[in-house]
Amino acid sequence: MSTTTRDPKAITPKSEDFDRWYVDVVRRAELADYTPVGGCMVVRPYGWGLWENVRDALDAMIKRTGHENMQFPLFIPESLLTKEAEHVEGFAPEVAWVTQGGQKKLEERLAVRPTSETIICTLYADWIHSWRDLPVLINQWANVVRWEKRTRLFLRTTEFFWQEGHTFHETTDEAKFEVEQMLGCYRELAEEWLAMAVIPGRKTESEKFAGADYTMSIEAIMSDGLALQSGTSHHLGQNFTRAYNITYTGRDNTVQHPFQTSWGLSTRIIGGVIMSHGDDRGLVLPPRVAPVQVVVVPIERSNDPEGTEAVRAACVRLEEEAAGRVRLRVDRREGHRPGEKYAHWELRGVPLRIVVGSRDLAEGSVSLVRRVDGAEMRLPLGEVGERLPALLDEAHVLLRERALKLLEDHSREVATLDELRGAFADGPVFANAPFCDRPECEVEVKAAVHAVTVRCLRTDRSGEGRPCLACGTPAEHIAVIARAY
Amino acid sequence: MSTTTRDPKAITPKSEDFDRWYVDVVRRAELADYTPVGGCMVVRPYGWGLWENVRDALDAMIKRTGHENMQFPLFIPESLLTKEAEHVEGFAPEVAWVTQGGQKKLEERLAVRPTSETIICTLYADWIHSWRDLPVLINQWANVVRWEKRTRLFLRTTEFFWQEGHTFHETTDEAKFEVEQMLGCYRELAEEWLAMAVIPGRKTESEKFAGADYTMSIEAIMSDGLALQSGTSHHLGQNFTRAYNITYTGRDNTVQHPFQTSWGLSTRIIGGVIMSHGDDRGLVLPPRVAPVQVVVVPIERSNDPEGTEAVRAACVRLEEEAAGRVRLRVDRREGHRPGEKYAHWELRGVPLRIVVGSRDLAEGSVSLVRRVDGAEMRLPLGEVGERLPALLDEAHVLLRERALKLLEDHSREVATLDELRGAFADGPVFANAPFCDRPECEVEVKAAVHAVTVRCLRTDRSGEGRPCLACGTPAEHIAVIARAY
Repeated sequence: MSTTTRDPKAITPKSEDFDRWYVDVVRRAELADYTPVGGCMVVRPYGWGLWENVRDALDAMIKRTGHENMQFPLFIPESLLTKEAEHVEGFAPEVAWVTQGGQKKLEERLAVRPTSETIICTLYADWIHSWRDLPVLINQWANVVRWEKRTRLFLRTTEFFWQEGHTFHETTDEAKFEVEQMLGCYRELAEEWLAMAVIPGRKTESEKFAGADYTMSIEAIMSDGLALQSGTSHHLGQNFTRAYNITYTGRDNTVQHPFQTSWGLSTRIIGGVIMSHGDDRGLVLPPRVAPVQVVVVPIERSNDPEGTEAVRAACVRLEEEAAGRVRLRVDRREGHRPGEKYAHWELRGVPLRIVVGSRDLAEGSVSLVRRVDGAEMRLPLGEVGERLPALLDEAHVLLRERALKLLEDHSREVATLDELRGAFADGPVFANAPFCDRPECEVEVKAAVHAVTVRCLRTDRSGEGRPCLACGTPAEHIAVIARAY
Repeated sequence: MSTTTRDPKAITPKSEDFDRWYVDVVRRAELADYTPVGGCMVVRPYGWGLWENVRDALDAMIKRTGHENMQFPLFIPESLLTKEAEHVEGFAPEVAWVTQGGQKKLEERLAVRPTSETIICTLYADWIHSWRDLPVLINQWANVVRWEKRTRLFLRTTEFFWQEGHTFHETTDEAKFEVEQMLGCYRELAEEWLAMAVIPGRKTESEKFAGADYTMSIEAIMSDGLALQSGTSHHLGQNFTRAYNITYTGRDNTVQHPFQTSWGLSTRIIGGVIMSHGDDRGLVLPPRVAPVQVVVVPIERSNDPEGTEAVRAACVRLEEEAAGRVRLRVDRREGHRPGEKYAHWELRGVPLRIVVGSRDLAEGSVSLVRRVDGAEMRLPLGEVGERLPALLDEAHVLLRERALKLLEDHSREVATLDELRGAFADGPVFANAPFCDRPECEVEVKAAVHAVTVRCLRTDRSGEGRPCLACGTPAEHIAVIARAY
């Protein structure tokens, strides 16, 4: 860590200390901050606006695929939480307990929901009777609480915000389709909206959701080479429907337990957006979800009233042309130099900056700077409004290509544990290796390199029977092995 | 209460037992239900869809008036909650306490937020420094918890959902303007979106928010003549900013405490929508927020394949014409008679029903029934799609007129306590009376008639110095005296 004195408002360079860079960016861009409430964050307007855009994009996909939103209780009585054995074992260490309500001690303590499978199963046991009641396709946007000792804004907080989808089906194949469909939505969100590079796959037994038959995830690469689990989709089999005694009369008139899925994506993804794309000047936001997509900085000169008049008129024109199409803001703040304004909006990762000055304007043009690569261009004032959507799309494509390049540059193919060690010698990478998916081999992989885990077994590639990197037996899978947040 | 046996799916008539009617409607229309979690409700997809539409309408007004959404922690440490004396006294009896996190007992217990003034003041004490930081105009959509012994779905639940706006200003006048502006938004929501009849006014000292200088509210009339407080807006003066030591350097370079407001509207308003408009067949939903605005019931006959073909084609045409303009659903469920489908959607309060039958269709028309008054009309199939928005607007106007008529019919002018007693002799009314706003007189009013309260001091009328109904001194105010939920 550097010991030189530095502008207290400056951001720690990424190369110097990635963790400090991250916290600096989150706090100085006013996305979120710590609070006096241990482990809980406050999400500030700029951060919440970003989340609202992510939420709206995903919500549309969730509805498009036939799901409806609803809302379950925040509290779950202890006796309900504990019916599914693996589940309670997984979550018990993280639960916050309400023991007092109003002025009296509760007879049964209430968990603040860490996730909602247990209360949902309890309620649906009364609502599902016949195969005609299936499938049940629901989703909830909610806050959940999992007690954390170390806080990392967005990435690891005691309270966080997410959607949790929950579905019940007649057959395991339908549930399997659902698990994949919703993982596909997460992938679409990550790639098409957030311009991230992700790998889809299945979690190993040791990494799956507590109570699931299996868990699928998308694993995103961060710009320091670490992985971030960015969305998970679980096949719950009949584990909960048996434990909570949910039954229905099937088409063949026999009484059966439905098959169940659940899937969630949280405010963690905001951390992923920051660490995927940000640079030493701050955030670089994906254009499709950026709260401000275009910022306009007017250059006014007190000794040039006529030019100032023209500059102001041009800003109003840009606002009018953007209305309803592009989220554009004119930075009219007084008492700030243009350079300060540029830095302000660069820190906040606004994809495009338009500078309106009287000299350019005299030639009928404005200048435009793209955040992702700093490219500058001059455009006729008369064209810029209608070209903004296409310019934002171009910025998205550039950002996405950069993320894919990052993944490519950090990807390694390894065939043995020795090669795995070698791959991590110069820093964190995404190592792809044939893997047999036996717990013993997973232990060996984790022992081979400090802090790595099997992130997922890729669903887009096969091991093709090549020898497992640990035991050498023919492997069906390609495992992605990486360090992770 | 009737002892006759009755279809278990039927709704208790309003006239027989309003409370049972209400619960029947909420549960059978699948808006919400009880849960095994004492005091907490589950909001089902149809109810949550309704709330999402209400939320989106209000959120647009909140943003239009310059506010930004953000998100504060769910938990508030006890020491922070207790800094403003009146506030803690008001809320302490209702707080749920977390005393254990993960597997250890907490050193300081955490309140599950009953409202967020205390944590917001704590955070903004660090963020407000100069008059340039003002005004702060923020809002949060969140769940809050206030321990309740008796549960009434939507109206009184331990957990409920709301928005809470919080603002800080340089002057008390600015804060006063804000309080009135946001009350105006609530009134606009109630009238223009929910077709309710409401009276705006100021709460008396005994009814104000704990810690406020004063509270304003809108009071809506329910179809049983009771009042429902449907949105509140508080001028908090400097009470919290002093207690939480929020200071800023003013334009005159002196250190000052800002003036503060808060304002909230909750899922309670859904109860208000139900009780304002519903009838013995179920819900009557305001068209602008109804999750399904138009339902189409196809009449298919197995012995008329050609007619059935035409019916199906007409339904597809209606769907296509409605797309993006009107929330229209075709009820294609099999194994249900048309009459069952009519009852199903009447219970759910869908504003317009279109019946598509082959005989009407042969003449190029469909029939349409309006939920609010049962009016039937025949319309050319070729016109109905484009006329739907106007037909929905007409239904809104009718519903709103009916609510205003209800208020008019239940309004009484009274000049003395005797007249007040007389006004309530035949059932609950909204009694308007000159009132001096002294606590002693409020006590007399409450003693005069069982269970009445001063709902508010109307801001749309003046007492004009007429004698207070209790003490006879010249009164500035007209009080609305009513029974309330």
